[in-house]
Amino acid sequence: MADIISVKSQSRTHFVNITSSVSEHLPKNFSGVCNLFCQHTTAALTINENADPDVVRDVDQHLEQLIPWRNPEYQHMEGNSAAHIKSSLLGPSLTVPVENGKMLLGTWQSIYFCEFDGPRSRKVTIQLCPSL
Amino acid sequence: MADIISVKSQSRTHFVNITSSVSEHLPKNFSGVCNLFCQHTTAALTINENADPDVVRDVDQHLEQLIPWRNPEYQHMEGNSAAHIKSSLLGPSLTVPVENGKMLLGTWQSIYFCEFDGPRSRKVTIQLCPSL
Amino acid sequence: MADIISVKSQSRTHFVNITSSVSEHLPKNFSGVCNLFCQHTTAALTINENADPDVVRDVDQHLEQLIPWRNPEYQHMEGNSAAHIKSSLLGPSLTVPVENGKMLLGTWQSIYFCEFDGPRSRKVTIQLCPSL
Repeated sequence: MADIISVKSQSRTHFVNITSSVSEHLPKNFSGVCNLFCQHTTAALTINENADPDVVRDVDQHLEQLIPWRNPEYQHMEGNSAAHIKSSLLGPSLTVPVENGKMLLGTWQSIYFCEFDGPRSRKVTIQLCPSL
Repeated sequence: MADIISVKSQSRTHFVNITSSVSEHLPKNFSGVCNLFCQHTTAALTINENADPDVVRDVDQHLEQLIPWRNPEYQHMEGNSAAHIKSSLLGPSLTVPVENGKMLLGTWQSIYFCEFDGPRSRKVTIQLCPSL
Repeated sequence: MADIISVKSQSRTHFVNITSSVSEHLPKNFSGVCNLFCQHTTAALTINENADPDVVRDVDQHLEQLIPWRNPEYQHMEGNSAAHIKSSLLGPSLTVPVENGKMLLGTWQSIYFCEFDGPRSRKVTIQLCPSL
């Protein structure tokens, strides 16, 4: 059965580090793939640097530059087309390798929930598939 | 063995909702991960809103704005570099959670095949991996 | 256990075709999903055309146009924000279908390691999950 991770974003765009929440769902003896899935169309999942908070700030800001919140071309009435576009660009699913209950992330990698139309309460599903 | 979903796109860019085609391949008692893979380099897969068709229209149009069909910088002779670039940005693979034969999609989420150099006949593979 | 593929990039941006390296890790009787994961925050994985080298050149160059190396908006001190942004856009993980030890790639598809801050020595993990 899929587990659920709950995320509360605090602003319109907000990159929330969920690495430790994901880790809590990994049994010590599990080796395989951790499948993460974002159940929202105005948010996404990504992996990026955790050491300097300016890295995800720069990712967030540059996405804003490429996909501005206001654009006379957008036709979706709700006014949040930018969030939907960013959601498709970063994507809803990630697959992370796990060995003996520990994710094989690189030294600087953390997993981020990317809010693009917050603040909101959000959900990420987590499933574990054994590997050979 | 992998199953195949066939998709027929109707125009140069076309977001085709394939959610119900994917659902047909899920056995009622299956819980795990549904792995979708697009076998083409000028197309992609994404998940986005299904309620207002203007959402995928806006995604499509904004990608066109960021990656115009004509650009003097492109060197690929075939003339469809824009389609290849969009394909890499949205990506060829998605992993979707399933419980008891039903995908755990959010309320507004549907799965789209994204055509960027149509109209064409296309293929998406589907594989089911059991989870713990 | 996860296997590791080592990649050596030769320039700041470099798309390295790793398809044959991945193939070497697939047992002849394996059918299921090949999970690839890039352990770096200034690199990514993608799938695109292998026939004309101008295709990945155009992807590389257009990303450079959208996300220039220098931009007065970037605040990350290390000066490689562009590489981090590209990494999130293309993404760290791919899932590729395999049948009887052969990847079900389309005729023109190859798997690329995308270096955005090289030259460097890099690692990609590979895990195999059996499917139904």
